[in-house]
Amino acid sequence: MKQLLEVKNLLHEADQMDSLYTYKKIGLLNGNIFNVVQVADRTLDFHVHPHSDELFYVIEGEFMLETRDQQIKVGSGEFVIVPKGVEHRPVVTGLTKFLMVEQVGTLNKENSGNSYKQI
Amino acid sequence: MKQLLEVKNLLHEADQMDSLYTYKKIGLLNGNIFNVVQVADRTLDFHVHPHSDELFYVIEGEFMLETRDQQIKVGSGEFVIVPKGVEHRPVVTGLTKFLMVEQVGTLNKENSGNSYKQI
Repeated sequence: MKQLLEVKNLLHEADQMDSLYTYKKIGLLNGNIFNVVQVADRTLDFHVHPHSDELFYVIEGEFMLETRDQQIKVGSGEFVIVPKGVEHRPVVTGLTKFLMVEQVGTLNKENSGNSYKQI
Repeated sequence: MKQLLEVKNLLHEADQMDSLYTYKKIGLLNGNIFNVVQVADRTLDFHVHPHSDELFYVIEGEFMLETRDQQIKVGSGEFVIVPKGVEHRPVVTGLTKFLMVEQVGTLNKENSGNSYKQI
């Protein structure tokens, strides 16, 4: 069976989303899911992912990634990887378009807000 | 021990490279290595990675990803994921700056050219 590959444009994928906090799967790599999501004016509670590292890449906008030891500004074209077990929270002011990467099954309403939805 | 996180800017990281075909590690996520690399005017031989999917993200420039069934143009801000076991080769005309992601230990001179170097 032919396995046809697809090209994905990060900004186009993010711009197609018509609701906030909906995670759209745009890729799968070695058991890690690549999602685009739009977030606006939201601070999550501090939380940990005990089994997965987590990557935040900013497609457009910016946010603050907070750990118990740091406050880090992440802007457009930049990423930060939070190792598993490290307590953290994203603080988003304004509208920010993200690419997120983590192991399949990591995200849920507990760690991603009550409006979390995976498509 | 405090574990300090780092922000990485993809274009800045790629622009810091002073040689082609040198893969600079800029992140590690669940056993997958994130490298930036600059490539110019080069076609690799068809090859497979039997144990790892592989992501090509174009930071700047463009290239053709060829499989036995497809020729796909991948431009700036776009990515393609080649599932493990799928024969492929990148065809690069001009200078292209990549983010590459695959399992640690996947890349070598056999599948990445004789000038391959990991730093």
